Amino acid sequence: MAEDDAKKEIIKNSIRGVPNFPKPGILFWDVTTIMLNPKAFKYTIDLFVERYKDKQIDVVAGFEARGLIFGAPLALELGAAFVPLRKPGKLPGEKIFEEYKTEYSTDKIEMHLGSILPGQRVVLVDDLIATGGTLAAGINLVKKAGGVVVEAACVIELPFLKGREKIPDTPLFVLVEKEGL
Amino acid sequence: MAEDDAKKEIIKNSIRGVPNFPKPGILFWDVTTIMLNPKAFKYTIDLFVERYKDKQIDVVAGFEARGLIFGAPLALELGAAFVPLRKPGKLPGEKIFEEYKTEYSTDKIEMHLGSILPGQRVVLVDDLIATGGTLAAGINLVKKAGGVVVEAACVIELPFLKGREKIPDTPLFVLVEKEGL
Repeated sequence: MAEDDAKKEIIKNSIRGVPNFPKPGILFWDVTTIMLNPKAFKYTIDLFVERYKDKQIDVVAGFEARGLIFGAPLALELGAAFVPLRKPGKLPGEKIFEEYKTEYSTDKIEMHLGSILPGQRVVLVDDLIATGGTLAAGINLVKKAGGVVVEAACVIELPFLKGREKIPDTPLFVLVEKEGL
Repeated sequence: MAEDDAKKEIIKNSIRGVPNFPKPGILFWDVTTIMLNPKAFKYTIDLFVERYKDKQIDVVAGFEARGLIFGAPLALELGAAFVPLRKPGKLPGEKIFEEYKTEYSTDKIEMHLGSILPGQRVVLVDDLIATGGTLAAGINLVKKAGGVVVEAACVIELPFLKGREKIPDTPLFVLVEKEGL
């Protein structure tokens, strides 16, 4: 536990705050600086693996784009399938979709039909939970496919945006909390 | 070697061809079906790791979006940094960019300034090389930053599009060759 806390501290210290992105007044928490630090990046995946290795996960679903970077290595470590939740028009096959609001705009995510089978146990992964709109949409997509949502996992939570309230039925696992400006 | 060929065969058989995407007459090779098969996905990363583990790689650079899915696990296995090459407007920090033509359109990729240091040894990763425009742009970006391009790695090559000719100075490593319609 103390060891986990030390890892989380290293991860937290590897995250860069970029002011006024994507628009004035917003402090953007940039995880590319985690990936630049091989130790911090490895600890991030290790903590996710530790959390899910005994939870019989069949599928890891990762949100485009940064959720792909954290979700794919987790799926590989768990021996689970990896399903990308993508922006409109990117997936070539038959698909289902869900619309949602983000901190900044209205958007839509798509998932390949048949990529999650009824009854499969799914963990959703993204870099950050802000208002929770993206995660809520992903959870709805997984449920539409008949998947069992075990948990959502994010590197960073912004508690002041109360994103957890948008996904009241889904446990949320986060490594680091950050504030706004 | 025979073992590698067996792995490549499993990977090749996991790739789905989707006709008429993103436009009529194009056969799109869909790698999401590799990720749905944990064994095929693991073999893909294993073959990349085997190729680069003794090549002193400092940085793996992955192209948005599918190159993130294959590049991030490779970076983690190598203990290298991971640098995303992203579409315009996505990276929050100071950045450099390069314009390029794809099979379908003109596009632009961006990289964070300072994410690759002069002299660092870099392998670029994408899911597929088609006409080679994306890879050529990424190679130029890495060189602009002062990085040493060791090689480019793709899961799939479409030899009939002659993409290799666009990156004459860079070795290209691919796992699987596919044809057009």
